[in-house]
Amino acid sequence: MSAMRLGRIAHPEGLCFAIIEGEPGSLVAKEIAGTPFTPPEPTGREFEEGQFRLLAPTLPTKVVALGRNYADHVAEVFKESAEHLPPTIFIKPSTSVIGPDAPIKIPDFATNVEFEGELAVVISKPSKNIQPENWKDHVLGFTICNDVSSRDLQFQDGQWARAKGIDTFCPLGPWIDTDLDKLNLDDQKINAYLTHDGKREQKQDSNTDQMIVKMGGILAEISASYTLLPGDVVTTGSPAGTAPMVPGDHIEIEIPGIGSLNNPIERA
Amino acid sequence: MSAMRLGRIAHPEGLCFAIIEGEPGSLVAKEIAGTPFTPPEPTGREFEEGQFRLLAPTLPTKVVALGRNYADHVAEVFKESAEHLPPTIFIKPSTSVIGPDAPIKIPDFATNVEFEGELAVVISKPSKNIQPENWKDHVLGFTICNDVSSRDLQFQDGQWARAKGIDTFCPLGPWIDTDLDKLNLDDQKINAYLTHDGKREQKQDSNTDQMIVKMGGILAEISASYTLLPGDVVTTGSPAGTAPMVPGDHIEIEIPGIGSLNNPIERA
Repeated sequence: MSAMRLGRIAHPEGLCFAIIEGEPGSLVAKEIAGTPFTPPEPTGREFEEGQFRLLAPTLPTKVVALGRNYADHVAEVFKESAEHLPPTIFIKPSTSVIGPDAPIKIPDFATNVEFEGELAVVISKPSKNIQPENWKDHVLGFTICNDVSSRDLQFQDGQWARAKGIDTFCPLGPWIDTDLDKLNLDDQKINAYLTHDGKREQKQDSNTDQMIVKMGGILAEISASYTLLPGDVVTTGSPAGTAPMVPGDHIEIEIPGIGSLNNPIERA
Repeated sequence: MSAMRLGRIAHPEGLCFAIIEGEPGSLVAKEIAGTPFTPPEPTGREFEEGQFRLLAPTLPTKVVALGRNYADHVAEVFKESAEHLPPTIFIKPSTSVIGPDAPIKIPDFATNVEFEGELAVVISKPSKNIQPENWKDHVLGFTICNDVSSRDLQFQDGQWARAKGIDTFCPLGPWIDTDLDKLNLDDQKINAYLTHDGKREQKQDSNTDQMIVKMGGILAEISASYTLLPGDVVTTGSPAGTAPMVPGDHIEIEIPGIGSLNNPIERA
């Protein structure tokens, strides 16, 4: 199928998957029949920006994430060189997923909560033992993941499932870009902008050139253990620049060429 | 509803949920309409043992597990006293779940694979912030979980999501016992029997009196972070006695009063 941006939307009459066209401010959502996992067929129903709300673009059974996959982030958070601390796999549950503009809600016990802006892929079909060179055969498209993490719980628990799995701690979106040749995965910017006390500041200003295990290797490694299902998300790790967020803040993760994922921060 | 054993079965004409009566050797499965989450209504269709196969009794969106929740197991695996290593939460993905008698398949890279026989509960309704004293209001019943773990991957990765999340590494069953007053949770035996080279030996011979955080506390702690959905499984940690399994072995986890969960071990 030709490249497009696929989203899931709430409109006055219900929910649907849709092709998303245009730019923020003048987006148009064109409803498709069924799911994004077959060639999308527009129904003819269209909604203009203001008439719909973007939801998380996929309903994953699991989000499989990679820790310590950017050299600059390993140095920043773990105070260690990447060669001594290899990447590690963890899972964010489906109940942690929210969409664009939905609030990240921080419970009292989750202190020192940081954003992590990441490039993610959405799986297109049941996949096991993916060969690194064939990864595009198993991927529907790119999206953005904010791997929200309570640093205090992360280091206190040892296991990261709670620190990174709390309800609302996995914003995804704004859509799935199906153009798998669009990005240069060896040289792709990943930015994050935090607005605190009304002041917007760039915090994350990194590049996939810092990625340790590359996309094919990530999908091969993960699918050697787990069957990946259509809609599942694999997120590729955070570069440096993560920083604390507090209720009242606003976080934007930007991957130029894909789009921006925006979420306000609230107290749960 | 009155107490019963609920299972999911494959029969010559398809799959269904069923009330399971009788004892192994003369089981009867009585098909119910719909799911176990509403009062079960028998359809009148029945299958005798030999005409059906028990499947995992639930289709969880996630299995939330507790590590280091039995004092005897903390000493055995972590060589540490439990007061210095508190319980920790991790997630086994839905794709790791298998049912009774299905093979646990060990891939080459997962070495030193051990069983962990555990008491588990199946969630009955969407649940957040469960109060410890009200845990029974959120639970459909008890089942047995084998938290299969590659000890080498577990300690090599640091995160346990891979070591414990590989496809087939979460046997569940044989059914859900809805009698929540049946067990004395402060004094309940949990046994495991490993058959190796044709010789059956009891390996796990422990008791819930070794549990550190009790059922109400576990469900309160987990549901403070995660929304639990109907069918989700919470497993309460392994007591001492875990031991390696190799292809050709057979593992039986027994919780007297609930039943036995049997699985052969194969090479993936």
